[in-house]
Amino acid sequence: MRIGIDLGGTSVKAALCEEDGTLLAKQSTPTRTGDAAGLCADMKLLALALCGERGIAASQVTSIGIGVPGSFDKETCTLKFGTNLGMNNVCFAEAFQPEFSCAVQLDNDANCAALGEATAGAAKNARNMVMLTLGTGVGGGIIIDGKLYTGCNGIAGEMGHVVIQRDGEPCNCGRKGCLEAYASAAAFVKFAERALAEGRESLLSKHAGHLDAKMICDAVDAGDLLARELFDEYCENLSSGLASYINIFQPESLVLGGGLAGYGEKLLEPLRRLTIPQTFRSDKCNTEIVCASLGNDAGLIGAAML
Amino acid sequence: MRIGIDLGGTSVKAALCEEDGTLLAKQSTPTRTGDAAGLCADMKLLALALCGERGIAASQVTSIGIGVPGSFDKETCTLKFGTNLGMNNVCFAEAFQPEFSCAVQLDNDANCAALGEATAGAAKNARNMVMLTLGTGVGGGIIIDGKLYTGCNGIAGEMGHVVIQRDGEPCNCGRKGCLEAYASAAAFVKFAERALAEGRESLLSKHAGHLDAKMICDAVDAGDLLARELFDEYCENLSSGLASYINIFQPESLVLGGGLAGYGEKLLEPLRRLTIPQTFRSDKCNTEIVCASLGNDAGLIGAAML
Repeated sequence: MRIGIDLGGTSVKAALCEEDGTLLAKQSTPTRTGDAAGLCADMKLLALALCGERGIAASQVTSIGIGVPGSFDKETCTLKFGTNLGMNNVCFAEAFQPEFSCAVQLDNDANCAALGEATAGAAKNARNMVMLTLGTGVGGGIIIDGKLYTGCNGIAGEMGHVVIQRDGEPCNCGRKGCLEAYASAAAFVKFAERALAEGRESLLSKHAGHLDAKMICDAVDAGDLLARELFDEYCENLSSGLASYINIFQPESLVLGGGLAGYGEKLLEPLRRLTIPQTFRSDKCNTEIVCASLGNDAGLIGAAML
Repeated sequence: MRIGIDLGGTSVKAALCEEDGTLLAKQSTPTRTGDAAGLCADMKLLALALCGERGIAASQVTSIGIGVPGSFDKETCTLKFGTNLGMNNVCFAEAFQPEFSCAVQLDNDANCAALGEATAGAAKNARNMVMLTLGTGVGGGIIIDGKLYTGCNGIAGEMGHVVIQRDGEPCNCGRKGCLEAYASAAAFVKFAERALAEGRESLLSKHAGHLDAKMICDAVDAGDLLARELFDEYCENLSSGLASYINIFQPESLVLGGGLAGYGEKLLEPLRRLTIPQTFRSDKCNTEIVCASLGNDAGLIGAAML
């Protein structure tokens, strides 16, 4: 049995999984922001509650994994900077003792989501997969030979931080022209707000100043011309990054997660149409471009599989 | 004992290596272009000659690997399109029988060079490395956990075919703005020829129309202002790709090969200075940017290690 924990700024979620990642039970509790001891106590309570719910002993749990937002040190099992949690330098290595004696693993939440989708989700049968989460930023994760790939320092897989346009849009990372600056939900909204500020007519005008990605997608569905133009540009920008990732990895599966992936086939159809012909040997391209299928459970299952 | 063969358009090179990639002996012969049976016979003769030279029996050879230029099918050990060799659809699976009974492996020459550098060259101790060859094109290879990574269809690692400038310079692959269109030796020369055609003054003017990358590097050394400007731009373009590769892979080692890598520290110094600060978590960047150290032997050793 394995336990996976998804440490979010709002709630702490925990799941009990079988060795193969099958999810057996979930529990959650609001996050005690800024209270590291309280948070550790809650995590252990959740783990014990899961065991109680399924009638198993804590000693039967063979691994505990935690998906964390922020930077961390794997070797010491320490959260270094957890801005959303209001705490820094928290060591989780002994947080589950004495009841649980197994090792505790940490990784970032985007990596856990990728591992979850590769274990039990949209890329279940893929040995090699790349996941991009299209949210406030563009995160992601890389699975090679069924395992999470994290590089020599544990921070590989920053899929949003590849330049697709030198000297282009400013990115949060300090560079210009990163994929994140074009393909995140935030960038999608930014371009829409910019077009409205330039006086473009649209159904979106009444939401100017507080747009979100769903509003733009809804306006596409309603036949709005500006929204369609923004969506087409978004897909073109994203396809440029996807084609590059196929040329690098030729993965069985390229999984899109995050808020925008909720648009499903309406996003996948143009992306596939734009991306595949751009790949280097498009005749040999075997990469399936799909949306994540586990939702929030991906991070939980992935954490359990760390 | 292992045998590696580098199948080039001019010569066929072969090497006998120990299990760890240590090169023991080399032999070569001119390529019989367009004569598949002759080529296969020559490869076997080279392999036998190497065994003879070192006094070992053919039965002691545990693997034979061939680095091929062009497209191929690994499973059937068949060269599909070998334009430079003047032959298509040549199966090498039984080319070394009956003397050699071990399996024969194929991979492309850039992948073999990467595996060679990771085994016995500039990235000898790296578990994860990315190699970029800066030649007529930008090729490369990816080593993950000490093994060549080739994706689900055997053609991963097209490191030159990531877009760094949407709608930028046309690339040989049909896309616009690929790294290859900015960072290959051919692109370096193209930009120089373009500047000369625009009437820029330079020591290079006398070579207009038949420049090569070494001439431009020599002009940089001689203090030529245009050459310096072109070289600086080249390094900026290349650094953009290198920083993206570090953000994706965080490899222990990023190895540069091909003709331009012969410029050594003069290329590495500006590349390191420009690349590292662009990486996502530059404080945690542990990637060593180095030049290939095995020259032509890299492909031979890598083929032996397939």
